[in-house]
Amino acid sequence: MYSGAQFSIHAMSDDFIDVILGGVNALGTPNDLRIETDDISTLVTGSPRRVFQAMETAYGESCRRGGHVVLQAHISRGCPGEPDDPLCTPAADGGTGGASGERIDVAGVPRAGIPVRAQYSLYPLGIPDYMDVIADEIAAAKVAGVFDRSKHFCSKLHGDLSHVMAHVYNSFEHAAERAGHVVIQLTISKGSPSEVRS
Amino acid sequence: MYSGAQFSIHAMSDDFIDVILGGVNALGTPNDLRIETDDISTLVTGSPRRVFQAMETAYGESCRRGGHVVLQAHISRGCPGEPDDPLCTPAADGGTGGASGERIDVAGVPRAGIPVRAQYSLYPLGIPDYMDVIADEIAAAKVAGVFDRSKHFCSKLHGDLSHVMAHVYNSFEHAAERAGHVVIQLTISKGSPSEVRS
Repeated sequence: MYSGAQFSIHAMSDDFIDVILGGVNALGTPNDLRIETDDISTLVTGSPRRVFQAMETAYGESCRRGGHVVLQAHISRGCPGEPDDPLCTPAADGGTGGASGERIDVAGVPRAGIPVRAQYSLYPLGIPDYMDVIADEIAAAKVAGVFDRSKHFCSKLHGDLSHVMAHVYNSFEHAAERAGHVVIQLTISKGSPSEVRS
Repeated sequence: MYSGAQFSIHAMSDDFIDVILGGVNALGTPNDLRIETDDISTLVTGSPRRVFQAMETAYGESCRRGGHVVLQAHISRGCPGEPDDPLCTPAADGGTGGASGERIDVAGVPRAGIPVRAQYSLYPLGIPDYMDVIADEIAAAKVAGVFDRSKHFCSKLHGDLSHVMAHVYNSFEHAAERAGHVVIQLTISKGSPSEVRS
C-alpha cells in the first residue's frame, strides 16, 4: 500500500515564509516518513497514523507562529496508480496494508490548545456504495462532538485541532475497511477574522 | 444535477482581507450563480462552465492585487447526496444535466496574463474503471501543453491561468461522460517565492 498526503500551509501574513517553513521544518527528518516539499505542497509518505501526526505537528507549529493560518491537505491511501511502499505499512498491522480498524476516542485525545474550524470530504473510490461510507462518518463526527454542519460537497467541523485531526483519521481508517482506495480533502482554519459561530 | 465548487483564496500578505474579498466581490450577483461565503470557503453553484468562469474571475482579481496568492478549489457535480438544481443545468444541454462533451481548445483560449503553477486530482466516483478516466485526462494535459509532471496523488500543471482553468474544465466535462459523480481538487499558485521551473 502507498499512503500519504500532499499538504500546504497558507499563512495570511507578510511573514508567511517563516510561518510556513517553521511548520514544515518542525517535522525534522524522521526515519519512518518521507518528506518532499516543492512550491505548491509538501508530500509526506508513511503509515496513515504517522502522516496525520506529521500534518498536525507542522500545522500546529505554524499556528503558534502566525495569525490566520490554513492547512489544505489532500490525503490518500491505496491508489492503484501508486507503488507499494513498506514505509506505509507498519509491521503492527501484519504488513497487509489494510485498515487497522482503529477508532480513536476523539474526546479522550489530549488537546493541542488550538481551536480550529475545518471542513472535509471523504471519497472511497471504485465502489458503488461509497455514499453509505460517507454517511457513517458524518454520523461518527456528531458522536465525536466535532460536527458543525453539512455544507455542499463537505462537512464542516470545529473543535480543538487534535480532536478534529483524530476524527478525520478515524474516517480515513474506517473507510479503508470498505474501499481499497480512499481520499480525503481537508481544510483547517485558525484565526480567521470572519469566523462566526454557527 | 447539482454542480458547483467550494473555493478558498489564500493571500500571503498582511492585506489578505482586501486581496481575498476583492476577488470574491468581483463576482457580483449574477442571476445564473448562487454564491455563499463563510469563514472557510465560498460556495458557487451553477453550470460547470459558469462555475469555472467565476473561480477564474475571483482568483484573477485577487492575483492582480496580491503577491503570493493561492486558490484551493473543491469542484463537484452529480453528487447523489445533493438536490437537483435547474441553475446547474442550462437549457443548452437539453436539461439532462449530462456532460456537454465539450473540449475547449486550450491553446486557443485568450490568456489572462497571469502565469501560474497548479496541481489537480480528478475523481470519478462509483465506477470501477475510474483510473482509466484519470489516465485519459493526464494524456490530454500533455496535448494541451499545461502538463508539468506527475506527483503522488495529483498532476502538476503550469501555464497561463486561463489555459490551466480550461484544461481542468475539460477534465471535469469529459469525466462526467463516464461517471455521474465527479470531483476535482485543484490548487493554483501565483507568485510563490519558492517557485522553481522543473
